[in-house]
Amino acid sequence: MTKVNSKKKNIVVIGGGTGTYTILTGLKKYPLNLSVIVSMMDSGGSNRIIRDEFGLLPTSDLRQCIVALASDKSSDVLRNLFTYRYENGTGISGMTFGNLFMAALADIYKSQKKALEKTFEMLEVKGKIIPVTYDKTNLVARYENGNQILGEHEIDQPDEELGEMKIVELGVFPEAQANPDAINAIKEADAVVLGPGDFFTSILCNVVVPGIAEAIRSSKAKKIFIMNLMTKFGQTNDFKASDFLREIEKYIGEGVVDYVLINKKLKLPKLALEKYKEEKATLVKDDVKDNHIKVVREDLISGTIFEKVKSDRLARSLIRHDPDKLAKAVVSLLRQ
Amino acid sequence: MTKVNSKKKNIVVIGGGTGTYTILTGLKKYPLNLSVIVSMMDSGGSNRIIRDEFGLLPTSDLRQCIVALASDKSSDVLRNLFTYRYENGTGISGMTFGNLFMAALADIYKSQKKALEKTFEMLEVKGKIIPVTYDKTNLVARYENGNQILGEHEIDQPDEELGEMKIVELGVFPEAQANPDAINAIKEADAVVLGPGDFFTSILCNVVVPGIAEAIRSSKAKKIFIMNLMTKFGQTNDFKASDFLREIEKYIGEGVVDYVLINKKLKLPKLALEKYKEEKATLVKDDVKDNHIKVVREDLISGTIFEKVKSDRLARSLIRHDPDKLAKAVVSLLRQ
Repeated sequence: MTKVNSKKKNIVVIGGGTGTYTILTGLKKYPLNLSVIVSMMDSGGSNRIIRDEFGLLPTSDLRQCIVALASDKSSDVLRNLFTYRYENGTGISGMTFGNLFMAALADIYKSQKKALEKTFEMLEVKGKIIPVTYDKTNLVARYENGNQILGEHEIDQPDEELGEMKIVELGVFPEAQANPDAINAIKEADAVVLGPGDFFTSILCNVVVPGIAEAIRSSKAKKIFIMNLMTKFGQTNDFKASDFLREIEKYIGEGVVDYVLINKKLKLPKLALEKYKEEKATLVKDDVKDNHIKVVREDLISGTIFEKVKSDRLARSLIRHDPDKLAKAVVSLLRQ
Repeated sequence: MTKVNSKKKNIVVIGGGTGTYTILTGLKKYPLNLSVIVSMMDSGGSNRIIRDEFGLLPTSDLRQCIVALASDKSSDVLRNLFTYRYENGTGISGMTFGNLFMAALADIYKSQKKALEKTFEMLEVKGKIIPVTYDKTNLVARYENGNQILGEHEIDQPDEELGEMKIVELGVFPEAQANPDAINAIKEADAVVLGPGDFFTSILCNVVVPGIAEAIRSSKAKKIFIMNLMTKFGQTNDFKASDFLREIEKYIGEGVVDYVLINKKLKLPKLALEKYKEEKATLVKDDVKDNHIKVVREDLISGTIFEKVKSDRLARSLIRHDPDKLAKAVVSLLRQ
């Protein structure tokens, strides 16, 4: 941290996926030293090809953070390209331009780390985007029936039978080391924000990388958890808010989370609720009371309903947090 | 042409492919108003996918011109990417980054013309890159046995039997109109340079687009033909220099070409000659004398031997013109 920025608060977001995109979009408008620790276990869609066929670390979660933190002064052409997903080409449809861009650079510079640095430069990224690990690893979930499933995509999009099961343990395989930059960012943080995002596959997948939970526990930062809006089939079936908190304490440690931010406006658009019903998702029931975790309730929801892009093989959330409302609520907590 | 540039000569290169890349690389170092009219009939490799699966005009020839004319001040990362061809990914290997970049922009802006303009901006291209046509068309060749073959790639890389045949007529199908910008550039030119490049599939393929030959004929520009170094199996078997000139006059008109630039240094590296023998290519024998076309002989060859890139499905020339020697020779003719 330079002297010039010494009065700015260090804020570290932990996640990956669209929820992280949302909160970064909001937070980047504030004078903060913003870092994001990004999940590196995605194995679906475009990432499967990046992993299996290119032998690289998956970059889709990074890509969303890059788009969120790209400077408005960077080339709008490049920013448009980084949000683009191909719809044509037998072997190309469904791939994102951003992933292909980073894969080409990884080959050109013979280093994926260097490729990422060059990408951050090109998009004039504000803040630090930190892969949670540079090790090639997979998420592994053990279910209540004893079955173990390897691969983020398989856990995120389970079949009917698996989807009914409860995840009793999450880990990574093979073993991975946390990126030292991630550890340092957490250590120096004034606030660590977990979420919003898919609970196991975007949030806890970072926490289970050896070194991360320990760093969060020992950091003096305020730890803030953004409560999920909806349950997700195969991950958090029938979870109430208290279930989320119990699970997060299981992985990070009891008494570590200081604040939980919960959306207080419960009425959701009918269209969205119907779609969620098809996906066996329900609103997360707010059943928590202030105890060792301080509960903050705000209107945090966006008015817009997001639909699935045709060429995108993965389902995206229909109801989302609002970037500005979310950022405002987080920044308020920083000032407390 | 603006007033500021009014003393700069307008030079128009006609071609596509590596020969065009070479001459542009040399010419861009001179204070010229440089334009290049680029073939749009390529149907092999990366272009087949761009045409058939994306429904776009082929962009590989444009891509080479973009790389040649990209400003040194443009992002070196982007210039590196534009020379990159993917080696991994089942459906991606063999594709060029540049073609994927332009295909994404064509979809984003819903216009391939706009996509090209944005690309030229991004790479800060010096000079004008002008597609010979914006119509989707194919090269069609009629052979001495009466057979007609449709598609640049099929003509460029013929099978053994077809390769022994002589091309008696070249055209485009379906009908295409010359890009008005190409016509204007030729009209305003002080010099029109044909080549270097594959005779039928990089040079004459432009000339046969309705409107181009007529524009060349009626332009007051000096017309310069860069003589091919080697014959090419299936296109110019056993051609001597006089055969090239006879053929070019057949398509452009007798007495239209003012100068022919011929390499005078005939000794070629042994390795290269052996490789060419496998490809049934021979040195072009210099049998021409000054008559209505002025013959200029210079040392025009590069010392470097280029080898085929593994992932590149098309063979590339082993012996090439030297950019600086070629540009110097052309510029000397401009001053005559």
